[in-house]
Parts: sequence; C-alpha cells; structure tokens
Amino acid sequence: MEREFRISILGCSAATPTSLRHTTAQIVKYHNAYFLLDCAEGTQMQLRRMKIPLMRINHIFISHLHGDHYLGLPGLLFSLHLLGRKKELHIYSPPGLQQIIDVHYTTSGLKPSFKTTFHDIQQGGERLYHDKYLCIDSIEMVHRITCYGFKVSEKAPERNIKKEGILKYTIPVQSMQSIKMGEDFLTADGEIIPNCELTTEPHKPRSYAFCSDTAYTESFLQQITGADVLYHEATFLEEHAAIAREKTHSTALEAATLAKKAGVRKLLLGHYSARYKDLSDFEKEARSVFPESYIVQEGDAVDIQG
Amino acid sequence: MEREFRISILGCSAATPTSLRHTTAQIVKYHNAYFLLDCAEGTQMQLRRMKIPLMRINHIFISHLHGDHYLGLPGLLFSLHLLGRKKELHIYSPPGLQQIIDVHYTTSGLKPSFKTTFHDIQQGGERLYHDKYLCIDSIEMVHRITCYGFKVSEKAPERNIKKEGILKYTIPVQSMQSIKMGEDFLTADGEIIPNCELTTEPHKPRSYAFCSDTAYTESFLQQITGADVLYHEATFLEEHAAIAREKTHSTALEAATLAKKAGVRKLLLGHYSARYKDLSDFEKEARSVFPESYIVQEGDAVDIQG
Repeated sequence: MEREFRISILGCSAATPTSLRHTTAQIVKYHNAYFLLDCAEGTQMQLRRMKIPLMRINHIFISHLHGDHYLGLPGLLFSLHLLGRKKELHIYSPPGLQQIIDVHYTTSGLKPSFKTTFHDIQQGGERLYHDKYLCIDSIEMVHRITCYGFKVSEKAPERNIKKEGILKYTIPVQSMQSIKMGEDFLTADGEIIPNCELTTEPHKPRSYAFCSDTAYTESFLQQITGADVLYHEATFLEEHAAIAREKTHSTALEAATLAKKAGVRKLLLGHYSARYKDLSDFEKEARSVFPESYIVQEGDAVDIQG
Repeated sequence: MEREFRISILGCSAATPTSLRHTTAQIVKYHNAYFLLDCAEGTQMQLRRMKIPLMRINHIFISHLHGDHYLGLPGLLFSLHLLGRKKELHIYSPPGLQQIIDVHYTTSGLKPSFKTTFHDIQQGGERLYHDKYLCIDSIEMVHRITCYGFKVSEKAPERNIKKEGILKYTIPVQSMQSIKMGEDFLTADGEIIPNCELTTEPHKPRSYAFCSDTAYTESFLQQITGADVLYHEATFLEEHAAIAREKTHSTALEAATLAKKAGVRKLLLGHYSARYKDLSDFEKEARSVFPESYIVQEGDAVDIQG
C-alpha cells in the first residue's frame, strides 16, 4: 500500500514576513515520520496551528543561513526542551548554524534536555539521510551565500502482496519479506512459484525536490529530473526579472521553465516577495510555459501520489 | 492637553507560544514615540497585524535573555535592514545580547543599513532613557537569570494654557514656554500677571510599570508605588504556587497582592503558562484581593489616562 507522502506549507514569504505570510518552512510527512525543511521565525506556532506534532520531528534541514530560513530554530529548540524532549535531534545545514544555536544556549544558561547533532552539508548531491523507505540528498543552489535544496526520494517500494496467492500456497511469515522484494517462492515439494503469482507491481518510487533560494540555473537539472513534485522559489514576476537577477532569486517564469525541462509532474511556487499582495499572477505566468504550476501558501498541504 | 500613553499587548504567553498566544512583547506608545518592551518570536508579525509602524521604533528594552523575551529581535533587525532603515536603534538589556545579534549578522554576512547601539543594564533603578516628556528606568526583578522590569514615567507635564488669558494680555510666543512651566508674566507696562490667570493645573504625571518575569518580591515595591498601571507577570494560579516558586514566577494572587501594596490604579496580568486554556480564573483570583485587576491578551490596548 502506498504510504502517505505529504508536503505541508508553513510559510511562503521571501525575506521578511507580512501580517499574513510567514517566511519559509515546510514539513515533509512520510508515513509516520516528519521532516522539517527550513525553519523561519514563527515555525513552532505554525506547526501547532497545523496540528503537526513538534516532538515527532527528528530531522531538520536548513537550506541556508539567511534569517528568513532559520530564525525559528532557537525558539523551536527551546520549546522542545521545555516539552521535555529526550530523543536526539539531527540538524543538517551549511556550516555555522551550531555556533548560532550555542550562543543562544550559553546566554540563557540552558542545558537542553536532548542531544542535538549538527551535520554540516559540504556539497550538493550529498546523501544526508536515509532509512528503510526513503533518502534525502542535498542539491546545490546558486545564491548569495552557500545554499542547498533537498531531494526527498522514496526507495523502490516493496511489491504488493496478492492475498489469494499467499493463502493458496500457505506461505510462512519468514518468507514474506523476500517475496515482497521480488523473489520466487520454493514450496516444501520443491515447486517454484513465480513471484508474479504472489505479488503485483508496486507504484513507482515518488520524489519531492525542494529548491529553496536560487537564481535560475540548470546546474542541478539532472538531480531534479523526473521528480513527482518540484518546489521552486519564485520570488518575483518577470516584470521584476532584473531585481531577481541582482538578488540571485528566480521569477515564476524561470521556475516553470526549469520544471518543464526537468519533466516533473507538478510545480509548487513559493517564496513570494512581500511587494506582491495578489499572487494569482505567479500561477498565470508559470502556467504559460508549464500548465501544472501551482502557487502554495501557508496552511496548504500537497499529497504526492504515485 | 494630555498626550496619548498607550500600552499594546503583542504577546502574553509564558515560556512557549501556543497556536493562539505569542510570548512576551509590548509596545508603549507615548505621543508620537514607540518603545518596544521585550521582543519574543513573532513580534515583527504582531507589530504588522496591530498596524504599529516598525520603522518608528527607536528604543527596544529587553527584560532578560530567556528565549521567550528576545527571540524575535534578530528577525526584527533583519527586516528593519531590508526596509532600508537609516536611523540609529538603541537596545537596552542585560549583558550578552550584542553577542547573540552579532553572531546572526556575521553568519548571514549582513551589514545592517543602520547603527545599533547596545546598552547593558547594570542595576535596578538605572535611568535608561529620557527625553522632554518621559523617562524609563530599570527595575530589578527576582528571576533565575538577571532580569529587569521597566518603569515608564511621564515627566511633570506643562501647565495647560487658558486661551482667554493669553488673548487678553497679548502674550508673545517666546514667553509661552516659561508660562507653561508655571512662571508669571510681566507685561510691557510692568504689571505682573500671576500664572494662575494664564494656565490651569496639568494632569498628574502618569506612569507604567512593566514587571516581567519575577518571583513575588517586595524589593521593588517603592519603585512601583503609585503607578497608574502595573503590568505584573502571573504565570500561574495559586493552585500551582509550588511550581511558581520553583520556577521563580508569580501567581495571579501574588501579582494582585503587590498591586494592592503599591497602591496602583490598575493591574494588568500576563505571561500565562500554556497549561491554562481559559484565563478567566486569573482575573477572578487577582480580584479577590485587588478589584482593578485585568487579564490582557495579544491585540489588547490599554490607554493610561490621568
């Protein structure tokens, strides 16, 4: 059965929050695990508002050390301590974040109730995390300071068991795992039961590419090619392309151009400059080159289905 | 004429924010000036929501370096930079805050567009700020780490001009200031016009005492005596008095007891522990000893009138 793979948007504003929009943070929920991508100011409140359990987050990925992507982290860590967290927390980011957190801890005299392990990202394409079901790799962005996106990829799913096949051949529990992995089954009588009688094709592995702050670039095109869902920043509309270039950000049109070249199924736009009140032009502009473009805003959730 | 003297509540939760309550921050607006007392995570959004102009804040007072009282400061400073602020900003706090801000600036490579001057508070009763109309002094709290409250006191107001007296004696503009200060007026003919013919009694100078995190103490009673409005933390109800003591916080009953002893006109309660959903018991408990007790929550504004 397909596991839940859901992206929840906690913030979508670029640089500075507005009265209605928080800055960047997203939750990737895969089955029972929660991964936090960026952690802007107010993230802990947004998590509570969206009823996402703070204590269930064990891995946090910070794209870069501009305030609008990490300033909610000290507050989240303080709250996890106050909530009595014991489990180790892993934080992945460009170098420098541990120093920031340490100075907050030292000044307030706080000794956190849990261990925090900081992992410095060294380059794009680095395998940061993996478990039985999925892996998370860094993607090198092009920005004013070192910045990484993240690719969350489901591993090849196990084949789906055909109940009638299993019952017919009274297959023992200890053989189930190898059958799910595609192996044939040898009965006590020496008969070989081909795997296709016992299982059906699983869904294609799903993936999500989160491309945080970046100028338009095709340098990581290969890494995001074929992703089911691509989030790509779209800070500006084409009418402000010159500012986008100056500030190493992208326009909605550029995000859509990359989505098209990468052959993704769906593009999510975000990281809107506070100058835009109405966001509908972002969708319009992006859809002119890639119809499956969608603006996302805080409170939105997108399910990635196979 | 009495100048506007208004307290706006931006956050009222203790320790950790909830989905509905931000942690501590307040704005004192006096005439055209805005003073920020504490700056919890999300303060910049709260300022925008309450339509308080970020750029008009020139003085920020931080009571202590627990996260729930200062974690919104880096984000606010980043936003002021992005908004192109040029004017110097003054920040008053216990020692250590500059180090925290500096590490954020250094890591993000930010060179702010404005000068920030940090003033380390050394003791209670220190005059931190004064201008023509008011002064702000520190008040020493009793807490786990060094913590100060703030007393905002209006200076003795000028006397109110009687229009008919001014017209009758055709008093020149350059004499107005001394008359407002209480001096008599000498006419060209050498006649002395007593000040009481030209002015009326001004209102009594108003004051606001902000008592941030503290255990119950009468150590600063003298400093807050006679304040028009006292804000005193009330993290717990009496039923949790033991926890209040352990964590060096106060109960609603204790806040009210101090308000009564200090003979203030009105008590504002805040800094509620997240364990309480319904806050009405705080008011009930405090009013049992001091009837002019009021719970305040974010979005509330209290005008201090003479």
